[in-house]
Amino acid sequence: MRLKLRNIFLVYFVVSSVGLLYAVLQLGQQCDCSHQMKSLGMGRPKEQNPGHAKGPREKHVVDQLPVIYLVTPTYARPHQRAELIRMSQTLLLVPDLHWILVEDSAERSPLVADLLAQSGLHYTHLNVLTPPPMKLKEGDPNWLKPRGVEQRNEGLRWLRVNQSPMDRGVVYFADDDNTYSVNLFKEMRYTQKVSVWPVGLVGGLKYERPLVDKGHVVGFHTAWKTHRPFPIDMAGFAVSLSLLLMHPEARFDPNTERGFLESSLLTHLVSMEELEPRADNCTKIWVWHTRTEKPKLKQEEALEKLGRGSDPNILVYLSHDYQHIVKAF
Amino acid sequence: MRLKLRNIFLVYFVVSSVGLLYAVLQLGQQCDCSHQMKSLGMGRPKEQNPGHAKGPREKHVVDQLPVIYLVTPTYARPHQRAELIRMSQTLLLVPDLHWILVEDSAERSPLVADLLAQSGLHYTHLNVLTPPPMKLKEGDPNWLKPRGVEQRNEGLRWLRVNQSPMDRGVVYFADDDNTYSVNLFKEMRYTQKVSVWPVGLVGGLKYERPLVDKGHVVGFHTAWKTHRPFPIDMAGFAVSLSLLLMHPEARFDPNTERGFLESSLLTHLVSMEELEPRADNCTKIWVWHTRTEKPKLKQEEALEKLGRGSDPNILVYLSHDYQHIVKAF
Repeated sequence: MRLKLRNIFLVYFVVSSVGLLYAVLQLGQQCDCSHQMKSLGMGRPKEQNPGHAKGPREKHVVDQLPVIYLVTPTYARPHQRAELIRMSQTLLLVPDLHWILVEDSAERSPLVADLLAQSGLHYTHLNVLTPPPMKLKEGDPNWLKPRGVEQRNEGLRWLRVNQSPMDRGVVYFADDDNTYSVNLFKEMRYTQKVSVWPVGLVGGLKYERPLVDKGHVVGFHTAWKTHRPFPIDMAGFAVSLSLLLMHPEARFDPNTERGFLESSLLTHLVSMEELEPRADNCTKIWVWHTRTEKPKLKQEEALEKLGRGSDPNILVYLSHDYQHIVKAF
Repeated sequence: MRLKLRNIFLVYFVVSSVGLLYAVLQLGQQCDCSHQMKSLGMGRPKEQNPGHAKGPREKHVVDQLPVIYLVTPTYARPHQRAELIRMSQTLLLVPDLHWILVEDSAERSPLVADLLAQSGLHYTHLNVLTPPPMKLKEGDPNWLKPRGVEQRNEGLRWLRVNQSPMDRGVVYFADDDNTYSVNLFKEMRYTQKVSVWPVGLVGGLKYERPLVDKGHVVGFHTAWKTHRPFPIDMAGFAVSLSLLLMHPEARFDPNTERGFLESSLLTHLVSMEELEPRADNCTKIWVWHTRTEKPKLKQEEALEKLGRGSDPNILVYLSHDYQHIVKAF
């Protein structure tokens, strides 16, 4: 009887010790909140990646999501900071995104560097100056010369140096004044070669879109230069990273005829039949070619003449890390 | 000796049983991820609140955060959907926010109703038509008549009916084309009476802002109608909910002189000395008075004449719940 009790006690001791150990371990442990955050459309907290940096490969192995590389050309203007902040806040809602922001400038600016450092995004900050003969002049209409060509090519160059064809990813050329629904990024993530979808408010139409029959693109709803090989706006397609890396010659041609910029890249990569229609067979609009009005600054110029213009420290608010370079402005 | 062993066993039994019970309870329990999500600037998942509804009072008791009531006038135009989606995605990053979206229309539109239902935000959808004599006509310059006056007053009316002066909250009048940094909402949340801050790209200046001395507003950096009682843009102030409810006569005067709309509300509520400067004594810009260009739709009109205009089902994508009312368009 005494022996029996001891045996029961021993078995109970072992079982309950395991239970206690588990309870003690639970006390100090953090929750895995990735599921809840994903259901809200949030990625994990992004590790910051200031300046030039290697792609976030380690992270992808864990996440198993192809990375969206967003190549965004940008240039200095009074509303640049507003535009980039607005866009960065949308991108915060997209998991596994790497923002490659390329300034049209001789040097990377503190304004953009600081904005990126505070964005909470995974990013790479690049710059390349558009050669003066290719640049729009004050008063030139927007359409006269293509903008952002050198910057998009710089993004491609960076990807080719820093990524390998084995990396799963997709590349999207996202201007800084368009409007993006977070749904768009879900559509493009699993691109095999080149995926396409409608773009709102572009080409003089309420939308342009590929026409789809039995899952294949058979034409385009567009009203301008319909003879282009790919009558698609820059915002209307994404390219698989590995396809881009397998075709090192594929880039945007700065000397191409007006309207043919997108085609100058795509003809290296894909045929119309191979395009992958997204957004419910190209029937949903998740990106709009919005443009922000150039702000009117007449009063500013008048105040400047009186020596009472805006304070650059207020215009370009920099966090403490960047205060020492504010004089660059 | 036998008795002692039994006592030890009994004590151990009680202690380990509690441990086991805790371990078993932990197994089925969900994590509390609110802390992680807050550190990312995310609120808890918002419960949806379609149509007219009571304020989210129960929730606040738990959160202990004053609610930000955002009153946004909106009107139908080709880029309305883009603007509202872009804005709603910024608001998703703000905890404890209640969006009161007021359409300038005779009826609430399925486009806006569906967009709100899919937004993930806590919201109220209202409408009121601006009387035709007060309305801007096609081709009128933007500044000729104030826009959104009736809609902002409708938002105030709703707050007065549905909230009590005991509710902690702050009211901000947020147009649907401005650019908002999420930092702005942190600045306004603990408003006692009326808080103020700079606004970028407004009044012909790079920014307008209150001038602050020893923590008090002593003047304004502005260049247009400087004799206004409150030379502040609509985006540059927020009002405590209880102050608004204590002054039922406070509203926007649709017949006031151009530029005096903000003053027509504020003079009921506060004196200049009482204004609460935010954003580091009004030295940081977290909101910009951006405007989106009216899209050019020449090709659309040409196609419409040929009977090949845009498909309304694509323009106004409605989720399944709203498909049955798509014919309203």
